[in-house]
Amino acid sequence: LESGTFKQVRRMLNGLQPAEIAHLIESSPPPSRRVLWRLVDNEGEVLQELSDEVQAQFLRRMDAAEVAEVTEGLDTDDVADILQQLPDRVIREVLAAMSARDRLRVESVLSYDEETAGGMMNTDTITVRPRLTLDVVLRYLRRHDEIPASTDNLIVVNRKDQFVGLLPLSKLLTSPPTITVREIMVTDIDPIDADLADNEVANLFERNDWVSAPVVDKDGKLLGRITIDDVVDVIREDADHSLMSLAGLDEEEDTFAPVSLATPRRAIWLGINLITAIVAAAVIGTFQETIEKVVALAVLMPIVASMGGVAGNQTLTVVIRGIALGQIGRNNIGWLLSREFWISVINGLLMALAMGIMVALWLNDMNIALIIGAAMIINLLVAALAGTLIPITLKSLSIDPALAGGVVLTTVTDVVGFFAFLGLATYFYS
Amino acid sequence: LESGTFKQVRRMLNGLQPAEIAHLIESSPPPSRRVLWRLVDNEGEVLQELSDEVQAQFLRRMDAAEVAEVTEGLDTDDVADILQQLPDRVIREVLAAMSARDRLRVESVLSYDEETAGGMMNTDTITVRPRLTLDVVLRYLRRHDEIPASTDNLIVVNRKDQFVGLLPLSKLLTSPPTITVREIMVTDIDPIDADLADNEVANLFERNDWVSAPVVDKDGKLLGRITIDDVVDVIREDADHSLMSLAGLDEEEDTFAPVSLATPRRAIWLGINLITAIVAAAVIGTFQETIEKVVALAVLMPIVASMGGVAGNQTLTVVIRGIALGQIGRNNIGWLLSREFWISVINGLLMALAMGIMVALWLNDMNIALIIGAAMIINLLVAALAGTLIPITLKSLSIDPALAGGVVLTTVTDVVGFFAFLGLATYFYS
Repeated sequence: LESGTFKQVRRMLNGLQPAEIAHLIESSPPPSRRVLWRLVDNEGEVLQELSDEVQAQFLRRMDAAEVAEVTEGLDTDDVADILQQLPDRVIREVLAAMSARDRLRVESVLSYDEETAGGMMNTDTITVRPRLTLDVVLRYLRRHDEIPASTDNLIVVNRKDQFVGLLPLSKLLTSPPTITVREIMVTDIDPIDADLADNEVANLFERNDWVSAPVVDKDGKLLGRITIDDVVDVIREDADHSLMSLAGLDEEEDTFAPVSLATPRRAIWLGINLITAIVAAAVIGTFQETIEKVVALAVLMPIVASMGGVAGNQTLTVVIRGIALGQIGRNNIGWLLSREFWISVINGLLMALAMGIMVALWLNDMNIALIIGAAMIINLLVAALAGTLIPITLKSLSIDPALAGGVVLTTVTDVVGFFAFLGLATYFYS
Repeated sequence: LESGTFKQVRRMLNGLQPAEIAHLIESSPPPSRRVLWRLVDNEGEVLQELSDEVQAQFLRRMDAAEVAEVTEGLDTDDVADILQQLPDRVIREVLAAMSARDRLRVESVLSYDEETAGGMMNTDTITVRPRLTLDVVLRYLRRHDEIPASTDNLIVVNRKDQFVGLLPLSKLLTSPPTITVREIMVTDIDPIDADLADNEVANLFERNDWVSAPVVDKDGKLLGRITIDDVVDVIREDADHSLMSLAGLDEEEDTFAPVSLATPRRAIWLGINLITAIVAAAVIGTFQETIEKVVALAVLMPIVASMGGVAGNQTLTVVIRGIALGQIGRNNIGWLLSREFWISVINGLLMALAMGIMVALWLNDMNIALIIGAAMIINLLVAALAGTLIPITLKSLSIDPALAGGVVLTTVTDVVGFFAFLGLATYFYS
């Protein structure tokens, strides 16, 4: 690169929003990433917009002092998120390199799990007392240089710093300046408990259309607030989780992860699937004699297994999403199971008929036509039951249904598909 | 139900947030849904929180006057969303039953596609002129009874109602009352064009951490504004799209859709997969003679096809998500393809070795061990290339890669898997 072009690229790059720069970095293969990263001026802002996995790639090359320098001035929750990518020893070093005030704030967020309200919160709250008049509040605000982003409410606290209510800016602006905070504050909103799981926090925000919400500890003491931009990240990751897990991938998987990172992860998944495929092959193995007699069975058997897999996967996907959205519970499993049963009865008959007719015409053999039709109906029924019950059972065992569900389901539909088809054929031809 | 209990349930239900009632309705099978719906007082608010498919189920039982009554007082964009579920004739009837002011507003939103900024926008903007002093603005606001939800900026417009800039409430509150709007307004933010696609709008909100943003027409005239709560819905639906499409389902699929709705939709998908399974079976059919000679081939062949399917699905999922996030473009396909190639070379060798050793020990047949190892490497390589190129090609043909990608990929990995394994065996044993 010539020095002139280089400067121009640097200027263009730093003219973008930090999130746009982060998107550009995440859309680049690793070699270009390192070049882009060296051109970035505002490293902290860009770093916090990157996904965990890409963050970790850059952090690995920085020492504690650099991390402390780069993260200065970021929101407390973002600093905590970044630090959580580092080994404990380095976290301590980074904290030691911070100013005392920043350190205290970051430590308060770090003491909570990353996937709880405490780990998502920010400490940049503006608080007021209930007995103040709005006029005093307005003058107090004017003494601030700026108000933190996404502030739609001031938080009303008592002398012990406990949450009392919210003073929406919209009410502050539309009410007469002489009345007190107590008279117009909103008290019918429950603050968020610091231990609440992040997806529950997201549900609360979605259902109440919140822009920000206060976070309290067990004694009702105000700890910080959560803003909608961090909630949006949780929603995006949660929604990605099922998609990625069904393929044995992590929802934070970096699209451009290097070969050295991606290969071993995928090998584990392939290894698990090799074992289940061998189980299905072993089922076929027990029917070798029948296949030797009627080789057409070997030609048709993958159709039965594959149709069961596709039907089961439809049910599985609907149920896994229903579980993720919190729609499925003990009181509606029965209805769901019976619906899936009837769908598979109807579609099973339909597909069995279509396949049966084709086989009868193709091979001119009514026996195999009847056998494949019956096996298909059996496998579609089992697929519907398995697609419903496997994720629900895994969930109740606290195993991630999206990660384990697909493997278990395919094993069931393969084994049942081969067993039903070859078993019926063996019975018929022996 | 006794009348007393009935009243109690009704009171409890209506004590919930509209979004919570909507979630309860969506988590119930159709018969309970109808009972719950009859108990709801605040029908419009609940209706707009329901997903399109469930909305449509209730709307089908209402006449135009009822729809007009129920939607009165809702946000313009929510009314438009609800109306879009209805046939054109009914929409005209509902519009005729509205007040002239509401009708004009809803018509302005309805004139845009539901999946554009125009279809997402709300008309409840508060506008100010640049020459006003903040003091005048504050007095103007105090004449309002309330400020619309998620208002973080007032919108500054000129005499022709064209967008000039934003006046953040935070700046209004921290600046001296004597200065003018012009002096502190933010002008470096581009308003959103009404024709922009909804997922692009979501990207803008995510990258800039916006709470609300103004929408303008081609001449820069202010039409309305979009708020973060509607953007969150778009993000959720977009993220669900890939998951559901890969199973041949719609992202708005109702978890408790009745048998009559769910069965025909799934039948189409099963029918498509039946055809691709028959294609794969036809490939096996051409090798019947070889299978007759060595029946162990029939036992092992599903393993080769299945491993190719799993490996290809991992690549496909990563690429489909990368496309959905806008990370994959012409300039990085090459890098991605070569990474997937090397991953599949390494994992292909690993799995081929594992499988080869097992087959050699199990069947005590080195020939089949070598054949299955070679077929597996070939299929994993093809799976990696297909998993990368299929979604990218579909995308460039404007076909949804998430919907069509899985079917095409499985067909490729099945056909190649059977062909490579049985073809090599035929060559070897003939």
